[in-house]
Amino acid sequence: MRIQKLTESIEKEGFDAYIVAREPNIVYYTGSISGGVLVVTPKSEPVLLAPSLNITVAKDQATGLDVRPYTRSSLIGDVSEILNERSCGSIGFDEVSLDIYRRLGDSLGEVKIEAVPDLVWEMRKVKDPEELKLMKRAGELADIGMGAIREFIGDGVRENEVAAEASYAMRREGAEDIAFPFIVVSGPRSAYPHGGVTDRKIRSGELVTVDMGAAYKEYKTDITRTFIIGQPTERQAEIYEAVLDANRVALPRFVDGAAGVEVDRAARDVIDEAGYGEYFIHSLGHGLGLEVHEPPSISKRSEDTLRTGNVVSNEPGIYIPGFGGVRIEDTVLVDGQSPKRFTDFPRELDAMCV
Amino acid sequence: MRIQKLTESIEKEGFDAYIVAREPNIVYYTGSISGGVLVVTPKSEPVLLAPSLNITVAKDQATGLDVRPYTRSSLIGDVSEILNERSCGSIGFDEVSLDIYRRLGDSLGEVKIEAVPDLVWEMRKVKDPEELKLMKRAGELADIGMGAIREFIGDGVRENEVAAEASYAMRREGAEDIAFPFIVVSGPRSAYPHGGVTDRKIRSGELVTVDMGAAYKEYKTDITRTFIIGQPTERQAEIYEAVLDANRVALPRFVDGAAGVEVDRAARDVIDEAGYGEYFIHSLGHGLGLEVHEPPSISKRSEDTLRTGNVVSNEPGIYIPGFGGVRIEDTVLVDGQSPKRFTDFPRELDAMCV
Repeated sequence: MRIQKLTESIEKEGFDAYIVAREPNIVYYTGSISGGVLVVTPKSEPVLLAPSLNITVAKDQATGLDVRPYTRSSLIGDVSEILNERSCGSIGFDEVSLDIYRRLGDSLGEVKIEAVPDLVWEMRKVKDPEELKLMKRAGELADIGMGAIREFIGDGVRENEVAAEASYAMRREGAEDIAFPFIVVSGPRSAYPHGGVTDRKIRSGELVTVDMGAAYKEYKTDITRTFIIGQPTERQAEIYEAVLDANRVALPRFVDGAAGVEVDRAARDVIDEAGYGEYFIHSLGHGLGLEVHEPPSISKRSEDTLRTGNVVSNEPGIYIPGFGGVRIEDTVLVDGQSPKRFTDFPRELDAMCV
Repeated sequence: MRIQKLTESIEKEGFDAYIVAREPNIVYYTGSISGGVLVVTPKSEPVLLAPSLNITVAKDQATGLDVRPYTRSSLIGDVSEILNERSCGSIGFDEVSLDIYRRLGDSLGEVKIEAVPDLVWEMRKVKDPEELKLMKRAGELADIGMGAIREFIGDGVRENEVAAEASYAMRREGAEDIAFPFIVVSGPRSAYPHGGVTDRKIRSGELVTVDMGAAYKEYKTDITRTFIIGQPTERQAEIYEAVLDANRVALPRFVDGAAGVEVDRAARDVIDEAGYGEYFIHSLGHGLGLEVHEPPSISKRSEDTLRTGNVVSNEPGIYIPGFGGVRIEDTVLVDGQSPKRFTDFPRELDAMCV
């Protein structure tokens, strides 16, 4: 079904073949975690070339497909052979390394090959009902992880211990993986939007930002909350409320037809007006699905328009070097004119003071 | 110090500049997790261009370096400006995407730029004492994770719950992350060398292979054990012993001066002689460090020679579609003629029957 739709795009764009090589795209079109290269040509059956190491999992999961093994040394020859047999003169691909691109070009000679990742992204951006079911569950799992943190976090615990609790809770409940490496940044480290995890001890009076997500049957969610250990200072509360306002003002704008740049601006205006504009140093949001960062983009430079079925993050933040930072992020489904949150953990200031 | 050594290689190879863009290489040369692009030129100070989002963490961690922010739209111009100012006519790089390579080429005009990743790998392959200390701890953490699994695993538990326990134990003890997504493959799924994690219930009589690792201050280890739930059948025991023999025969060959291809062959011969050669469908080992898969390679096609300071995996396996599989893997330090194991969890058949 998905391959059929891709085939229609290939024909419409005038290509004789399309090479799918980005791993999540292989999952999307074949259902297999084997990786490899899927060759799609409008006039013949698609072929999944799977790494010989993963040939068994590929055959079991990519049911109904012609699955063949390749080794590192055979890959270029194997792909070229299929393309030559099928007389393909114009080939699109999603993403390959510089090295593979060159070797494939050498092997194919006169054939024109070009990167056309949008053929795939146009499909992946709009989630189908089955995908939305999985993402909803991945959202619930992220909320469960955040709940475990709120129970645990406090004066004297370490950043790595915070990650331990959330990871444990999500995996126990059915997450097969975390969506991406945890961010647990406490005290002055909370001024790092991306600061990883250390063994730093969290102390009373500090801001602690936790950014994490769950992976459920390959689909990823993304949630961020900032905790305050004890009662906030006036400045901490002011920053927190500015970020929360931005998140709230933006949420109803995640609707079908909205320009990404306008949604970003709505949140940015709130933070600007609060006087912290120079400290909101990243985009408001990004797409989510089989990957943690995918189209569409919701940023100052976004050229995307939101559509029903997009799943995106809403994550304003303020980061003051030497002082600390706050980010409040949810995974949001664009559904007509009524955005829905897949992560819905409490976000009011009171709820975050522990 | 590391940048100084890279500078010497750059001069020796006749380049005017070297661009470091692969994220773990940025960690290696600057100490920062910021990502970005490090421009090294023999005659001037190195410059770290950090994503503006990560400028604070870059400045805090890459002490003593000239750190400047870039945005996605400024990057190519920023890099070109430095290279032009410094009149660089011949530039090497570690790794860039096809898109960045083309845009940089367009921007630089006549300048010659080429991929020379080995300049970095020659350094990273040989770990220094500080790195070895971190990897030793990362090995201990992996053993702790495997110990938590042996306590927990049994009839009726699920694959995701197994991953939960190990992840929890490693993170509590100080791992800031897992080294890579868990592999927990039970029953017939154990025939998949890479099969991820599902919510499948593990049953008595099954083989369960767990492949995992800990990340400690950015350094990664890799360990695999196959458990038997209850007592093994004759065939399970035969396969297990063949893999264990291969692991044991290979271990003393991880010595300074050994050819990767010969070490691989030693293990492969054991499995061939046991009659399972066709089911050992991957390399014996790979390098470990800031990444889970890095040079040197220990395989049928390896052209590498092991050297003191290499840290590599020793991981023979047998995978029989429909039946199941066994893999036994440790992280090994090449140290003169006396290889040392950084992971040292028990591996005898008796110890794995739970």
